[in-house]
Amino acid sequence: MQKVKVGIVGGTGYTGVELLRLLANHPQAEVSMITSRSEEGVAVADMYPNLRGIYDLQFTQPDSEKLKSCDIVFFATPHGVAMSMADDLTSAGVKVIDLAADFRIEDLDVWSKWYGMPHTEAKLFDKVCYGLPEYFRDNIAKAMIIANPGCYPTSVLLGLLPLLKAGVIDPSNIIADGKSGVSGAGRGANVAMLGAEMSESFKAYGVSGHRHLPEMKEKLTQLSGGEVGLTFVPHLVPMVRGMENSIYATMKTDMSQAELQQLFEETYKNEPFVDVMPAGSLPETRMVKGSNMCRLAVYRPQGSSQVVVTSVIDNLVKGAAGQAVQNMNILFGLEETLGLTQVALLP
Amino acid sequence: MQKVKVGIVGGTGYTGVELLRLLANHPQAEVSMITSRSEEGVAVADMYPNLRGIYDLQFTQPDSEKLKSCDIVFFATPHGVAMSMADDLTSAGVKVIDLAADFRIEDLDVWSKWYGMPHTEAKLFDKVCYGLPEYFRDNIAKAMIIANPGCYPTSVLLGLLPLLKAGVIDPSNIIADGKSGVSGAGRGANVAMLGAEMSESFKAYGVSGHRHLPEMKEKLTQLSGGEVGLTFVPHLVPMVRGMENSIYATMKTDMSQAELQQLFEETYKNEPFVDVMPAGSLPETRMVKGSNMCRLAVYRPQGSSQVVVTSVIDNLVKGAAGQAVQNMNILFGLEETLGLTQVALLP
Amino acid sequence: MQKVKVGIVGGTGYTGVELLRLLANHPQAEVSMITSRSEEGVAVADMYPNLRGIYDLQFTQPDSEKLKSCDIVFFATPHGVAMSMADDLTSAGVKVIDLAADFRIEDLDVWSKWYGMPHTEAKLFDKVCYGLPEYFRDNIAKAMIIANPGCYPTSVLLGLLPLLKAGVIDPSNIIADGKSGVSGAGRGANVAMLGAEMSESFKAYGVSGHRHLPEMKEKLTQLSGGEVGLTFVPHLVPMVRGMENSIYATMKTDMSQAELQQLFEETYKNEPFVDVMPAGSLPETRMVKGSNMCRLAVYRPQGSSQVVVTSVIDNLVKGAAGQAVQNMNILFGLEETLGLTQVALLP
Amino acid sequence: MQKVKVGIVGGTGYTGVELLRLLANHPQAEVSMITSRSEEGVAVADMYPNLRGIYDLQFTQPDSEKLKSCDIVFFATPHGVAMSMADDLTSAGVKVIDLAADFRIEDLDVWSKWYGMPHTEAKLFDKVCYGLPEYFRDNIAKAMIIANPGCYPTSVLLGLLPLLKAGVIDPSNIIADGKSGVSGAGRGANVAMLGAEMSESFKAYGVSGHRHLPEMKEKLTQLSGGEVGLTFVPHLVPMVRGMENSIYATMKTDMSQAELQQLFEETYKNEPFVDVMPAGSLPETRMVKGSNMCRLAVYRPQGSSQVVVTSVIDNLVKGAAGQAVQNMNILFGLEETLGLTQVALLP
Repeated sequence: MQKVKVGIVGGTGYTGVELLRLLANHPQAEVSMITSRSEEGVAVADMYPNLRGIYDLQFTQPDSEKLKSCDIVFFATPHGVAMSMADDLTSAGVKVIDLAADFRIEDLDVWSKWYGMPHTEAKLFDKVCYGLPEYFRDNIAKAMIIANPGCYPTSVLLGLLPLLKAGVIDPSNIIADGKSGVSGAGRGANVAMLGAEMSESFKAYGVSGHRHLPEMKEKLTQLSGGEVGLTFVPHLVPMVRGMENSIYATMKTDMSQAELQQLFEETYKNEPFVDVMPAGSLPETRMVKGSNMCRLAVYRPQGSSQVVVTSVIDNLVKGAAGQAVQNMNILFGLEETLGLTQVALLP
Repeated sequence: MQKVKVGIVGGTGYTGVELLRLLANHPQAEVSMITSRSEEGVAVADMYPNLRGIYDLQFTQPDSEKLKSCDIVFFATPHGVAMSMADDLTSAGVKVIDLAADFRIEDLDVWSKWYGMPHTEAKLFDKVCYGLPEYFRDNIAKAMIIANPGCYPTSVLLGLLPLLKAGVIDPSNIIADGKSGVSGAGRGANVAMLGAEMSESFKAYGVSGHRHLPEMKEKLTQLSGGEVGLTFVPHLVPMVRGMENSIYATMKTDMSQAELQQLFEETYKNEPFVDVMPAGSLPETRMVKGSNMCRLAVYRPQGSSQVVVTSVIDNLVKGAAGQAVQNMNILFGLEETLGLTQVALLP
Repeated sequence: MQKVKVGIVGGTGYTGVELLRLLANHPQAEVSMITSRSEEGVAVADMYPNLRGIYDLQFTQPDSEKLKSCDIVFFATPHGVAMSMADDLTSAGVKVIDLAADFRIEDLDVWSKWYGMPHTEAKLFDKVCYGLPEYFRDNIAKAMIIANPGCYPTSVLLGLLPLLKAGVIDPSNIIADGKSGVSGAGRGANVAMLGAEMSESFKAYGVSGHRHLPEMKEKLTQLSGGEVGLTFVPHLVPMVRGMENSIYATMKTDMSQAELQQLFEETYKNEPFVDVMPAGSLPETRMVKGSNMCRLAVYRPQGSSQVVVTSVIDNLVKGAAGQAVQNMNILFGLEETLGLTQVALLP
Repeated sequence: MQKVKVGIVGGTGYTGVELLRLLANHPQAEVSMITSRSEEGVAVADMYPNLRGIYDLQFTQPDSEKLKSCDIVFFATPHGVAMSMADDLTSAGVKVIDLAADFRIEDLDVWSKWYGMPHTEAKLFDKVCYGLPEYFRDNIAKAMIIANPGCYPTSVLLGLLPLLKAGVIDPSNIIADGKSGVSGAGRGANVAMLGAEMSESFKAYGVSGHRHLPEMKEKLTQLSGGEVGLTFVPHLVPMVRGMENSIYATMKTDMSQAELQQLFEETYKNEPFVDVMPAGSLPETRMVKGSNMCRLAVYRPQGSSQVVVTSVIDNLVKGAAGQAVQNMNILFGLEETLGLTQVALLP
């Protein structure tokens, strides 16, 4: 079988290098092109020396015509770029996975409000699928454009949907308290993300509104069939990789701790990348560092009417590049775990 | 004026060395004795070299008779030790501040259940005051025994009480999502707290129940005059010092963002160690590192009916040793800020 | 071809879990047994949840007879254990790789002095080879027992030997200033390695003597054919993984910066796991995190007569478990890079 | 006595905020003015919230006339700024402490080469003193302009000078292997200093030449009376504050370990800010975090002819702002420790 020919647009950021890391050991895919306007001519291994000896690629100018020689193009770009090239590429039969937000929200008024630009590609949405395989696998297989989910939405949706779909919780008042490592902020020079600023400190941010909130609300509403009231507060953790969400909801149907555990285990029993932790244990972000796993635990503390779910992922893998590779595997009918069998790096 | 003569029982842990750090620059107090069963004869400056040149003290065996020569004794010991010596010391006129939990919870059945030992000193509770100055200042001044609050309760109570006392929120369903640096776990050898285990990782712990929960519930109920339903999930942050709590509650009285801000500013306008951040900003734990401040922000995100409070302290200062010194100042009629004017270390 | 059947003795430490991580993706090896006296009956995935879904093994008591069913046994144990079992295993045809120090030093008087125990197995040394493939590859292939090198010696020898073997430097006065992440200290409960102790701090340790010093001196002397004077000072870096050594020597043969670069590139041009960085650049430990690479740079600063080499490895991979797998590959005639193609995790 | 009136030019960086932290508790000094071209009108407490409630100052445009109302002006600016204003200020009787490098090197050709600009103020050098109080105290008291030493030079000079001045070591071949936390790189937005780049990684930098090298060589030569050959390699440590230098030299006069210890203790016995650690112990950077202390240890490892000194400081305190305050105290005849009695923050 011929390898899938991969192009990456905008490969200088952390999701770009993470795609390269994962695809380096993918037996059925090959990166043939990687673009960057600012780094044209630079070898990827000079920018990311962990790739020395592995890739002999240089960054090139993004060129639609050349990208059409690929089977699939990943966009690891700022918002708006995938939107501008997706029509052209998909018309030529090239599949697109956007790791940014251009196709994540179907309500384009909402999208425009949160992303501060008009959305010009409403016409493409019948080719689009939201790339959360655990809930959209069949549609992903048929799509031309995958909207790779945000990191917070990935972790929150996987933790919350078993409860919401089973009708166990009151959908009107859910709390998600999220925590992310600093790689989530990207590789842009930014005083607040300096080591001397973020180390040994913890803070909430975006309390008044984070772009992942409307994404979560739309998908939760779609999948559960009713309006969802969600309060979401993200926090910054002084670490590089990893994300945890603690999710709080009030039960409307009484379920015991054991029944909750069973609900989660049943929901995800065939999922290769969702792991329900044994009853009584809790996931830590280091249990998924560098891997595509989401690990979950569910609790009913002190016999109260509250349910607490904790959900961890590596924000750059299941929260970005790993999930994108998982989507690529589905798009091309490959085994879903190809290239994604890395064991988390612990310690 | 003669200096307050201070004894410290159990000075080898992090709250012990922090008491020494703070008292080193206190103009009206002098540490005359520090005890440790295991480290007898060791110079404190050998154990904690940051104290070299500052203290010429050695750890001694705890001896009630010698401790009676002090004006005040701080217990920086495991639970149960202060209980065993408090009657003897206070009968001799020596004031006691317990940095452990022996006198924090008045309902002694609850206490025994959570701390796994019988409480033998019910008779002392008329000498006891819970040492949260912002809400118990007058009673602290008259007490012989101060139950120095837990770190999580300090941060949560300061953040939640303005709302609860004003009747703004539904008391039946409050969420506190807490995060603490690892110094909170103390200086005991413990695999889970090794640098190679806790670094670059984030996790929830104690979801099924943490000892600070009954302490918080009792004080919230006492101060607000009604039953409080609180779900509390603590998390471990890969940093040494600092604690943040994000508190979520549902409004029952509609207040605007501006009114909430005003409520908090009004509540704490005369407090030297509570700082309400300007509207639109958020506190970070590094803004209080090494200082006795609690910094707070209050939000009503997206105009929803939820109120979110974020509250940060240094768990070893306002969450332990600093608050203990503040309580000592009150007990002896000193200016409350003496010895506590350190500026937070930033960066 | 049948897979190599692997046993691991003492698998609860960090080198044990790292062996499991690497062997999980090794196409020609299979872990059939892992032992631990203290954790008998515990599933490895319960102790190391990053292995959930990957291994279905439990720790068992170490049992020589059962271990003889393996093709190779790795010892990830304290010093002295491999020594006690190696004769029995190798007599039964089982190959042994000791990740501890039992067979690293041939001068057994020196060994006994530094490791504080008598060495009982002098007779085995004709079956032993020091497992630094870049310099002992041919002998490794013929040995029954591999003394897997210490982490500091691996990094220092790879950086120093090109200069020493070429006779470029004065061998009598070499400085190696080493820095290691805290995982090198192992998983034992130990106050000095607590997160609250080692975070945000840097220190030298072992100035008066470190066990890796006699190991380095013996091998440097053997390989260069003359006495070597080495001063070695290790330091502790507040990070989990990674090791850097800066090596200082005085030139006795004048070589230009370009000639030094060429010497290094020439020396290692066929080595899969030694990477000489391009002239003018410097390696960082994150460029090898989780990978088996050693990355090197060589400098002649300011045209002085000093040569400076900086050498980085991941102490748990090339400095321990990865090099052990590399040695296993050589022992069994497999391709040397099997199971070792992980890309370093960056960021 | 009237307080010293202090102006700070360029107060937005880490040395600026550190000056503010230290001067906040200085009983004989008062900051009356702080300037920043870019942040004019911003309250310092808005930029550095650790200063909330402590300073009611705003950044203003630097204005020579207004600065002349101060008794002393600290320059916490990029190189070249102090040079441009020092003549005007000192002519008006205002003393100047430059925390940048404008007056550190007397050989102005060397200075120009390393700092990439011409030096226009040769005429001022008779008013200048290098601000290392332990070796230049008397001249500092008489100077108008203090060249506050670089962080590496402070740590290296204090560690090396006892040996060099006593003629114990060969001055021709000294190695200083330096390590610094990331706050040393300042608060400028810079990809290499992002938390996601520097965390959990260690590297050498500036091997081919660092600006602190000519500064060290000049002062070592001046103070020891002979040419000094020094190789200096700085490294970046994944922590915010702290600096360690390990210094290696060859003895030319034989001294025992005990004699070396005595030499150091004797040299610094009256110094308030240099602490020679007890024989057999080693300093850690956390032992000086936030304090103005330099802690030193001296070793002769394994009875070899090498001497090893390890020297730690907080790069922002003794390495910058703290030493500047110490110099101010000397300039104004104040007790040298005023405002500098903070105990290091441990843990």
